Amino acid sequence: MEDTIQIAIVGLGVIGGSFAWALKEQEDFPVKLMGIDRDGRTLDQALAAGVIDQGELVNREILQQADLVIITLYPDDLIAFVKGHRDSFKAGAIVTDVTGVKGGVVEEVVAILPEEVDFIFGHPMAGRESQGFAYADKTVFDQANYLLTPRPANKPENVHFLTQLLTALGFKSVRQVDYQTHDRMVAYVSQLCHILAISLINSDQAGQETADFMGDSYRDLTRIANINAPLWQQLFLHNKEALLRAMANFQDQFDLLKKALEDEDQASLMTLLEEGAKRRLALEKMDFKVQNN
Amino acid sequence: MEDTIQIAIVGLGVIGGSFAWALKEQEDFPVKLMGIDRDGRTLDQALAAGVIDQGELVNREILQQADLVIITLYPDDLIAFVKGHRDSFKAGAIVTDVTGVKGGVVEEVVAILPEEVDFIFGHPMAGRESQGFAYADKTVFDQANYLLTPRPANKPENVHFLTQLLTALGFKSVRQVDYQTHDRMVAYVSQLCHILAISLINSDQAGQETADFMGDSYRDLTRIANINAPLWQQLFLHNKEALLRAMANFQDQFDLLKKALEDEDQASLMTLLEEGAKRRLALEKMDFKVQNN
Repeated sequence: MEDTIQIAIVGLGVIGGSFAWALKEQEDFPVKLMGIDRDGRTLDQALAAGVIDQGELVNREILQQADLVIITLYPDDLIAFVKGHRDSFKAGAIVTDVTGVKGGVVEEVVAILPEEVDFIFGHPMAGRESQGFAYADKTVFDQANYLLTPRPANKPENVHFLTQLLTALGFKSVRQVDYQTHDRMVAYVSQLCHILAISLINSDQAGQETADFMGDSYRDLTRIANINAPLWQQLFLHNKEALLRAMANFQDQFDLLKKALEDEDQASLMTLLEEGAKRRLALEKMDFKVQNN
Repeated sequence: MEDTIQIAIVGLGVIGGSFAWALKEQEDFPVKLMGIDRDGRTLDQALAAGVIDQGELVNREILQQADLVIITLYPDDLIAFVKGHRDSFKAGAIVTDVTGVKGGVVEEVVAILPEEVDFIFGHPMAGRESQGFAYADKTVFDQANYLLTPRPANKPENVHFLTQLLTALGFKSVRQVDYQTHDRMVAYVSQLCHILAISLINSDQAGQETADFMGDSYRDLTRIANINAPLWQQLFLHNKEALLRAMANFQDQFDLLKKALEDEDQASLMTLLEEGAKRRLALEKMDFKVQNN
């Protein structure tokens, strides 16, 4: 690693742009920031804002210089980008991603990766509902969690370096987890929630009346139905098995409530509702701890 | 109607108590407030706070005096109370309830009601997660919606009077709706949401890890899993048919997403996600209007 760390960000959307801002404004590491984006206006904005020093529409010399490459593309584009640039990375470069699912993506990427490139997969648990560089902002990462899913092939010193750098960007914790656990947990705590929100709002039979009758429950449960469809379609498909398992587990519980209702089985209904209330209270206690540590 | 309106509140929990506070503090109608509650300590608190002028553990003379009776009991207790006191109401009295479902309750109550009592069914779209008189507060009703489900037998002047009185308590709007529409909408915008929250949290396979991985999606979707089980068990059972229909409609949409995922059908997945996003954006536009009117 040289004194000044040469960093390439591939994709200057809201996440890539936020990385650029956060990297520029941190003071622990001397960095040179370079950006690759298929939109010339985005590059112009980022250069004019002084947030990157160099920009390219397609890679010509940026990747060859970069000690660290942060790829913030959608899953399918990430795989295509690595395929198309496998011979452009600097020997010894650290490459990382921000993809919300790991299993399928890691396997495809690792299969095509040159041995001298150290790809450390990661996932910032942060985002914005708005898209594009204009919404990028280093505060996106403030107090958020970062998950790294290192592989045995990753060099410990590189994982350590990336952890230090991410901490300097404002993340509250940088945690290591195996990618199977990551994908199983993401399927449940995030993807299943989106499936439920979409199914709920798509099952609306009333239209206009719904807005008149709804309260906070419906408002909260449908908030994430305002989904980035092209991105989430890829995230769902790349995590198909884990998501289908989470959906099947949900279905089992939904069916128990349905049967208790059909049978007018007060005892079973009480047991299921009390179990839910108990679990939520336990979660709030753990959440409180997490937020105060 | 006499100059001072004699009002009996049956059940001084968080809703009944909030009615008492709001009635005491409004200035449009001169009222005398009386309370019936099975808990002597609750009556003592309400009397000591000066929020009721008279209290009884079981009715002795309160109902006989009351021009207006507001019953804030759970559905099964409401039915039992009306059965047990059908001969105690003052002739010409207006009686109202706050039950969250109507169909089953209305039919059972009307079947046992003396002809000279005018029962106007209603539902304040407001509440607190905490229970009991100690949490009662007139601000519970501030800017909330009130739904009345009048029957052909109700006297228009009584519906008008109740509407004026509720408006004086701080409700933003008092709207009339037939009880079938009420129950269908409540099944969808409220009860189904609670079924989903319970099913989601009860399908957790990870325990402690969930608190570490979760973000706002999971936090928001499970908030209402902290349910008052004895109350909601009754609300679900009294609205069984409408809730099962809402659950079936949800199931249809859930199954479409599941099939698209199983088949890795990108086009169908995109269509379903885009439809959800479109509906949520439309809802936000209507919600904005509602909130600003």
